[in-house]
Amino acid sequence: MFPLLKDIIVLDLTVALSGPFSTQILADFGANVIKIEPPAGDFCRTWGPFVNKESTFFMSCNRGKRSMILNLKSSEGIALFKRMVEKADIVSENYRPGVMERLGLGYDDLKKINPRIIYSATSGFGHTGPLKNKSAYDMVVQAMGGIMSITGPETGEPTRVGPSISDIIGGLYSAIGLMMALYHRSLTGEGQMIDVAMMDGLVATLENAIVRTLYGGAIPGPVGNRHASIAPFESYMASDQYFVIAVANPKQWALFCECIINKPEMIDEDRFRTNELRLKNLQTLNEIIKPIFRTRKADEWLELLDSKGIPCGKINNIAQVIDHPQVKAREMIVDTNHPAYGLIKLAGIPIKLSLTPGKVTRPAPVLGEHTSEILKELLSMNEEEITRLVHSNVCSRAENHEAIPKE
Amino acid sequence: MFPLLKDIIVLDLTVALSGPFSTQILADFGANVIKIEPPAGDFCRTWGPFVNKESTFFMSCNRGKRSMILNLKSSEGIALFKRMVEKADIVSENYRPGVMERLGLGYDDLKKINPRIIYSATSGFGHTGPLKNKSAYDMVVQAMGGIMSITGPETGEPTRVGPSISDIIGGLYSAIGLMMALYHRSLTGEGQMIDVAMMDGLVATLENAIVRTLYGGAIPGPVGNRHASIAPFESYMASDQYFVIAVANPKQWALFCECIINKPEMIDEDRFRTNELRLKNLQTLNEIIKPIFRTRKADEWLELLDSKGIPCGKINNIAQVIDHPQVKAREMIVDTNHPAYGLIKLAGIPIKLSLTPGKVTRPAPVLGEHTSEILKELLSMNEEEITRLVHSNVCSRAENHEAIPKE
Repeated sequence: MFPLLKDIIVLDLTVALSGPFSTQILADFGANVIKIEPPAGDFCRTWGPFVNKESTFFMSCNRGKRSMILNLKSSEGIALFKRMVEKADIVSENYRPGVMERLGLGYDDLKKINPRIIYSATSGFGHTGPLKNKSAYDMVVQAMGGIMSITGPETGEPTRVGPSISDIIGGLYSAIGLMMALYHRSLTGEGQMIDVAMMDGLVATLENAIVRTLYGGAIPGPVGNRHASIAPFESYMASDQYFVIAVANPKQWALFCECIINKPEMIDEDRFRTNELRLKNLQTLNEIIKPIFRTRKADEWLELLDSKGIPCGKINNIAQVIDHPQVKAREMIVDTNHPAYGLIKLAGIPIKLSLTPGKVTRPAPVLGEHTSEILKELLSMNEEEITRLVHSNVCSRAENHEAIPKE
Repeated sequence: MFPLLKDIIVLDLTVALSGPFSTQILADFGANVIKIEPPAGDFCRTWGPFVNKESTFFMSCNRGKRSMILNLKSSEGIALFKRMVEKADIVSENYRPGVMERLGLGYDDLKKINPRIIYSATSGFGHTGPLKNKSAYDMVVQAMGGIMSITGPETGEPTRVGPSISDIIGGLYSAIGLMMALYHRSLTGEGQMIDVAMMDGLVATLENAIVRTLYGGAIPGPVGNRHASIAPFESYMASDQYFVIAVANPKQWALFCECIINKPEMIDEDRFRTNELRLKNLQTLNEIIKPIFRTRKADEWLELLDSKGIPCGKINNIAQVIDHPQVKAREMIVDTNHPAYGLIKLAGIPIKLSLTPGKVTRPAPVLGEHTSEILKELLSMNEEEITRLVHSNVCSRAENHEAIPKE
């Protein structure tokens, strides 16, 4: 067993979230991901919360990568980047379409230098179409992509999804594209370009909402927390917090009446005996159920529901997720440790491969931590040449981080 | 150029959403995906809306696949499946952990038949850990996975994400795992097992919510539609519908005051002149802005905002997304056409590969449409053998679909 992507060198120009989220997946599987940052760093390094002055936002999407500072506003920086492209397998960026072309670093330029290069571009709206130049923030894409229109309280306002879901979905589709391109290259030796738009990703995730709109006779609105066609299947308040139950078949309904709410007479009651009737009389049903659920803690109800095999779950807050026994058993919270900022806990790796598993081997880098190391390794430069580049403001090193062990 | 996955045969036992969503991605890139259904069919064939009695829910995650009916409750059905595994590259399932093992079809069984086989298991909570046997519905996983706790109106109840996001994220991670396993196999010839839990997928998408919980001093709650650290950056109501704006820097603030709300005197006003001040006095700011936005239609505001380069977007409903010029330009709504149910529009392919692009070549199958075709093709069976299998209830054909052209 060896890391899946151990021979893959990624030149990672991505910033903030969508791009870094996708290249972090490659890093988790052993790719040599070189984060190339401008002298001021990826701008999400300024987003908190901070630990020892370092951004934990940055850490949560850049672990496993190394950082070098390269000034792409200098022609020598551009030339240096091109030399790196000769040695690399993947170039990943999430600039607005056109930026890389203006630097002379578009896919058409880079494939001349290295025809095996795989070029991944993640953007808000994609590299084609009338909106290709429109600037994208996650919330703008969420708004335009339709997901907000079906999220939220049933009679309320369209609602943003908590995590930056358009960045994340865009990042995941980019990761699939990258693995597809690597697979194709392993068969043919050819590189190619991957163009993923966050907006397109959201359209794909709408899946059955599209057919409901076109063939269901109505435009779907916010769904609230209630299942559209099963009842009772929604969130309820216990004495301490919210939880969800799903009574999805007649057997579960009987168990629910008899063992959970202790009202066996309701099983065959005319208002409730079928799912259809329960949907029709849901308000009445909830008037009976809700006060009962408020009498005990969520954990007590869930233990009881689980013991009867009725699908259910607590609406965990993030602290509860982090401490959840299943999350721990699946190693979905992992530790990273850096001399400059210490131990940081991050989300783990959700792709469990039996033969070539992922592993978090390295914390997120501080800005420019590996500039020299990478120039020596990739371009066989010596200390003198690197010092000259630093003095000409082409590269920089992380000299202000005392805690980093000397390279 | 040829389809990326043209030589890949997928035996697809998945049902409903998470598994089918991942194998549909492979089908979009040319894999030969054989959907193996029980005599009653994938249960999501009973979910509407229906067109000519066929489920459009089913169609939206099964296009590009062929369907055969195989009864895995008969020993001859099991034996037949094993013969198919000899010829296949991928087996994909999303049963509860343990089901395939009890059928004698777990990964350990199948790799003895075909060591190159790649086995993908997508489940609610994964194949390890204390909750591995717990039954999972998307909303239960959304509840337990933390995403609901940070979605919803700021002072309201935790809220379900509209699309079945835990199914979708689980499906996307499974697709990445499948491409990783194919890549590894292309280098070494070895198959392996991929174990993806929908819950793990959601934990990974929490990304910076985890560090905000651990290092930010508070457990995040529902975020509403307001950006936590930029203002004004939220949703507003126009005279006709909601839209989103993001005023993210001093230049945009000046343009906003001068050209959008026509109040240049506000640019340097003490209450609003910096982002920090605007955040602090957001309520006052919104009392000024909101009535102004209600005076015109969203499209008018957005045209004006776009012309000034201020990030913005309409909160599109699904019908608006389907008709959006950018969505059309990106081919994100595609047509499929089936003799039994006609033309159906579905979400397109968000991974745009320059050399080996995806393509929707085939509509979703009706149940058992390709049983004979597949048995002939994969196992070189003749009509007689197939008829015998049908008579012994091992296989079935789609004989009730008059409209399907004879095989």
